[in-house]
Amino acid sequence: MGEKPETPIRFGIIGCAKIAGKVARAINLAPSSVLYAIGSRSIEKAKQFASANGVHESVKIYGSYDQVLDDPFVDAVYMPLPTSLHLHWAVMAARRKKHVLIEKPTALDVTELEQILEACESNGVQFMDGSMWLHHPRTVKMKEMLFDSNHLGDVNYIYSTTTTSVSPEFLENDIRVKADMDALGALGDIGWYCLGAILWAKNYQLPTLVTALPDVSKNSNGVILSCSASIQYGEPAETVAIIQCSFFSSTSMDLAITGSRGSLNLRDFIIPYQESSASFEFTLGAKFLQLHIGWNVKPQKVVVASELPQEALMVQEFARLVHGIRTSASHPDPKWPDISRKTQMLLDAVKKSVDFGCKPVYFLGL
Amino acid sequence: MGEKPETPIRFGIIGCAKIAGKVARAINLAPSSVLYAIGSRSIEKAKQFASANGVHESVKIYGSYDQVLDDPFVDAVYMPLPTSLHLHWAVMAARRKKHVLIEKPTALDVTELEQILEACESNGVQFMDGSMWLHHPRTVKMKEMLFDSNHLGDVNYIYSTTTTSVSPEFLENDIRVKADMDALGALGDIGWYCLGAILWAKNYQLPTLVTALPDVSKNSNGVILSCSASIQYGEPAETVAIIQCSFFSSTSMDLAITGSRGSLNLRDFIIPYQESSASFEFTLGAKFLQLHIGWNVKPQKVVVASELPQEALMVQEFARLVHGIRTSASHPDPKWPDISRKTQMLLDAVKKSVDFGCKPVYFLGL
Repeated sequence: MGEKPETPIRFGIIGCAKIAGKVARAINLAPSSVLYAIGSRSIEKAKQFASANGVHESVKIYGSYDQVLDDPFVDAVYMPLPTSLHLHWAVMAARRKKHVLIEKPTALDVTELEQILEACESNGVQFMDGSMWLHHPRTVKMKEMLFDSNHLGDVNYIYSTTTTSVSPEFLENDIRVKADMDALGALGDIGWYCLGAILWAKNYQLPTLVTALPDVSKNSNGVILSCSASIQYGEPAETVAIIQCSFFSSTSMDLAITGSRGSLNLRDFIIPYQESSASFEFTLGAKFLQLHIGWNVKPQKVVVASELPQEALMVQEFARLVHGIRTSASHPDPKWPDISRKTQMLLDAVKKSVDFGCKPVYFLGL
Repeated sequence: MGEKPETPIRFGIIGCAKIAGKVARAINLAPSSVLYAIGSRSIEKAKQFASANGVHESVKIYGSYDQVLDDPFVDAVYMPLPTSLHLHWAVMAARRKKHVLIEKPTALDVTELEQILEACESNGVQFMDGSMWLHHPRTVKMKEMLFDSNHLGDVNYIYSTTTTSVSPEFLENDIRVKADMDALGALGDIGWYCLGAILWAKNYQLPTLVTALPDVSKNSNGVILSCSASIQYGEPAETVAIIQCSFFSSTSMDLAITGSRGSLNLRDFIIPYQESSASFEFTLGAKFLQLHIGWNVKPQKVVVASELPQEALMVQEFARLVHGIRTSASHPDPKWPDISRKTQMLLDAVKKSVDFGCKPVYFLGL
């Protein structure tokens, strides 16, 4: 950690989920932010978190979320709360003029998210969701390949899968499978990334229709544990995307984007294998050799170094925007709320198709 | 090419499609077979093929398919004919006691294939389809990983895609998009491999249901140019497979198999990047590091050398079976017809689901 500027953005963390440890570290790694306060439902839990994560003793420890929001020195809050609590606490934070960095899924549905975004907008605070991978320089490099240089040609197929094999205890007791906590289950927890990747690859154009596939698996409370969906752009299809997310398969996070001239592939798009650098592969102009006894090209590997971990880059970007608002009275950047809104809309559509027995859900007039 | 045994299996080739050049070479590379005759609809086409492929002058050149089948020295025929001609010519070959090595898709539907298989069985000749990748030692090695050592745990997700970006001329004029020639289009030409890979990964267990996805694309004659499907084992799903095949995306041939403990991946499963060796990757026991700032393992690469190209290994295996039938009066091996039959059944189910507007097709009681 280098020298911090004189007026770093002071973060309060609301909720002590595991992921908060990662973001607490990121807040301190990022050059213009500091961890200022931690709040949990009990002071004991907050203290425990502080101790387990080596939090500096100068950081305020609060036994309620409200105390964090009431602290006038807190500029921004990071919220790793169960999804069902997002609406209440994000709106509360915005009303107290705290900038909001919130974990995904952003809300139970887009109607809730709209209320959060409205609160952020009317209070002039920045909103951003915790999709860290969007901030990795690898992602920037891939985007360049996709759009700036149009290497792949017309993108007509996108595939993304995110899986993690959870324990039987998780399937019984984890917040992420509780209908009153993270009601969106695997779709919200990990499918969010797949859907976000599709939108990213399509430059945030919404699709024409979404169809859940019949293999959906739910627990006894109706929470999705595994599902897949077909996402179609144009009718007839110009681009087809398939996503799959599951709590049953071993860890994977694949993204493949295929165009008329080439394809781009990576297998660790959400969390890179290692922090210091990450890679992706591309294959351009692949043809078979004479007699089809091999290929003319093999996948090329592009390695992209990262000085800071992607979560610190996320915090850095968020802090930069907050700083701009604070010092030069600039407006919050609408890019990030827009990304969240579209991802949530797409997630809602998949959920709706699942709920309606895999009927196609159209994005007419959106 | 080494020394051939005294009584190699003599192959006749019926039809001079491009792929025949590859198999002609394979027949000569394989240790116990020789190319004996070539037949086309015209003697000119046959001569042209012979010259373009450097076929030895001792090879008989015929101006009709019948002449190849009538030649008593021909032991086996290889048929790279349009699908719609398979039934007629494969049955004709079997009746003349010629062993049948046939290109995929094996027939227009399983009813036709059953007639071919019945003809082969009643005439005591071997049947095999041209799925070359099944004969590569890499495939054997992957199978070992999947079944013998059960490294991946319970396989619950399989994904396979095969794409090739064809020219506008192809889309207009190629045999593979003609309703009266290769009526199964992309599904038959390249989807066959995806479906075969799913069955292979499930040890040739048929699924419970098959659902085509709504993104299907057809030409004006109703021939499939691009489609995808969800293939489900068990209800609720125990294993889900997704396949995608398309004439619009650049060359890809991906296979990913994911289980509860690990995953296996390769991107050139049908035609290896190079002839001498091929590889696949596996990831076992992947977890995230403390704070989720990286993975505990990266994909491991397994490289498998191959002394002969996979198509020569296919011919070798076919010739071995033919030799056994010829010399020790053993019966044809039912394994290969069984693999073809199940692949064709699965293909028929996808086609049916496409034709019925993506309705699920059940494999009840099969």
